[in-house]
Amino acid sequence: MIYLDNAATTKPDEECLKRAEKYLYSAYYNPSALYAEGYNVKLALREAKKNILSTVADDINFDLVFTSCGTEADNQAIFCGGKRGNAVTTQGEHSAVFNAAMELKQRGMDVRFAALNGDGSVNIDSLLSLVDDKTSLVSVIHVNNETGAVNDITAIAAKVKEKNPHALFHSDGVQAYGKIPFRLTKNIDLYSVSAHKIGGIKGVGALFKRKNLVIKPYIYGGGQESGLRSGTENVFGIKDFEFAATEKYAELSKNYQTARELNDLLWQKLDKSLFVRISPTNNSPYILTVGVDGLRGETILHEANDNGLIIGSGSACSSNEKKRYSRVILACGIGENIADGVLRLSLSLCNTREEVQTAAQILNKIVKNRKEIMS
Amino acid sequence: MIYLDNAATTKPDEECLKRAEKYLYSAYYNPSALYAEGYNVKLALREAKKNILSTVADDINFDLVFTSCGTEADNQAIFCGGKRGNAVTTQGEHSAVFNAAMELKQRGMDVRFAALNGDGSVNIDSLLSLVDDKTSLVSVIHVNNETGAVNDITAIAAKVKEKNPHALFHSDGVQAYGKIPFRLTKNIDLYSVSAHKIGGIKGVGALFKRKNLVIKPYIYGGGQESGLRSGTENVFGIKDFEFAATEKYAELSKNYQTARELNDLLWQKLDKSLFVRISPTNNSPYILTVGVDGLRGETILHEANDNGLIIGSGSACSSNEKKRYSRVILACGIGENIADGVLRLSLSLCNTREEVQTAAQILNKIVKNRKEIMS
Repeated sequence: MIYLDNAATTKPDEECLKRAEKYLYSAYYNPSALYAEGYNVKLALREAKKNILSTVADDINFDLVFTSCGTEADNQAIFCGGKRGNAVTTQGEHSAVFNAAMELKQRGMDVRFAALNGDGSVNIDSLLSLVDDKTSLVSVIHVNNETGAVNDITAIAAKVKEKNPHALFHSDGVQAYGKIPFRLTKNIDLYSVSAHKIGGIKGVGALFKRKNLVIKPYIYGGGQESGLRSGTENVFGIKDFEFAATEKYAELSKNYQTARELNDLLWQKLDKSLFVRISPTNNSPYILTVGVDGLRGETILHEANDNGLIIGSGSACSSNEKKRYSRVILACGIGENIADGVLRLSLSLCNTREEVQTAAQILNKIVKNRKEIMS
Repeated sequence: MIYLDNAATTKPDEECLKRAEKYLYSAYYNPSALYAEGYNVKLALREAKKNILSTVADDINFDLVFTSCGTEADNQAIFCGGKRGNAVTTQGEHSAVFNAAMELKQRGMDVRFAALNGDGSVNIDSLLSLVDDKTSLVSVIHVNNETGAVNDITAIAAKVKEKNPHALFHSDGVQAYGKIPFRLTKNIDLYSVSAHKIGGIKGVGALFKRKNLVIKPYIYGGGQESGLRSGTENVFGIKDFEFAATEKYAELSKNYQTARELNDLLWQKLDKSLFVRISPTNNSPYILTVGVDGLRGETILHEANDNGLIIGSGSACSSNEKKRYSRVILACGIGENIADGVLRLSLSLCNTREEVQTAAQILNKIVKNRKEIMS
């Protein structure tokens, strides 16, 4: 089976799992406990925090809060950041930000959604036109999870702060972290990431935050995570995340180049008379999104599955919402005929050139056959 | 090392971990994905839900939402349940409920805290006196995590509903689930549990809910858990929880009896001239809390640790709050001289009679020596 749905989740790295296993089998103690065994687990968590922090930030200006997933990190940013005035985000957000923002709107807050460019990146003029002196929070996704478009959040955050230096700037970095060369700079206040998108396990995320930024917790209780996220820490998951992140960042540029080559090869091998490219050319190399005119993506997905190829059709989460067209794809200005036939092909370093070529062959054949039957 | 801090966390059951491992190593797919491999994981989650539900409830009247921990389940109950009028809870709640309730109060809601009896159980007259026709939520802990006192939540919920049938009744069942024979009845609307207290792993919890009860999600996003808890499901953790819960409920009464005998033996072997009992006699058999007059619990804990015995001093979480005296112990009416010397000895089925006897010997010796030095 060729697995090209790595943006939905990745196969956990086995070596990292093995290294983390001791936190299941022997060092299982509660990190809040006062005895030596508990304290050692607390130290292991500190080490994880330090190492993960160092991948994209310095520990003078930044800190991080471990959460149970990227979605929770996004929710904490949106609900604890968007407190007054208005909040500005984009039409291209993952549901974790979009639906949290919609809930804020539901509660009566003025929430504004910036328009997208055709490739899924945010239209910066549209975004800036929505920011005013009453804006308390701006949230812009780093890499669009449906098209792979990369928003230059460093530049966007600087422009936002120029218009309103008091607005908090948050970015959902779930599809960027561990993949795109990038470091947190002073204009970015909050940044959400997820472990299972980079070879870690499901159930772990983090919210990077500017150190001197005071935000409220979203989950209250025993005061773990310096009071910012209560609940006994998922030690095994956090250590596994540390190992996966460290591994990814050890060779980030090399990985990026490898993924770029795979992504280019995949596009090169797809029949251009059958597929239209939705991803921009400067996309994240880990995502290639294409459209097929007049066919349903879900149908192609199932036939590919029968032929040994696993792909996605837009965001995995969207299957829960049971909507035929992706809100993000429509916001790109893509018509319903193509929006119905969107395929997201997403890569990891586990994929090979052979797999990518075979995947393209399978997809070409399926779509060609179906088109022939239809005509 | 003898481990008597099982109320803080338990050693994950190795057999359950082994059974759940396939969800890390091979069936790692996103359960929201549309292809067969993803759908099979979704089916595995449904199976987990069905099996965990069946341990304490029927699936006609109850459902459950998987969360990332007991604390999150408590927060969802408190913040999504306590919406209008006033909320009533107790002085004996775990911080996950207590601090969430304090936050509600902070936001301007009328939040009322019922008094405790000397053993940590709620004073039912006090509780009922606080419930009125404006009460939207009542939350009463099932087994007090610091004293092991068991609140008869079935009877309490019935009395609450008699006073106000529209009030939601929630209970934090973290220290009861998998330990105390009990089933959810119609007067209980919401019930929180945690996996890592019963041989599961950290990072998994659940909120049981009455099926026809409409509550809002606490974490918004991709719409997982029927929209009630977004974020990619922690499949490995949930399956491991299923296996641990199934195992615990297969022999719940027998386990209860074994724990009862261990608990009784532990108390029997402790020198009554040195230790006062804080737990009631009808305590949860998994917790025995004692006090030492004039000595600090933390000091005894560390010396016990040096002598091969791991015990707790009140709630593990409280170490994050850095308060000398436990809020719950003081609310029991216990003076500061004893509140300073509280030890929580908590059992699991992994403990043996020999361990319990050795533990009592170690504690007797430590406290006797220290008292002699002091006098």
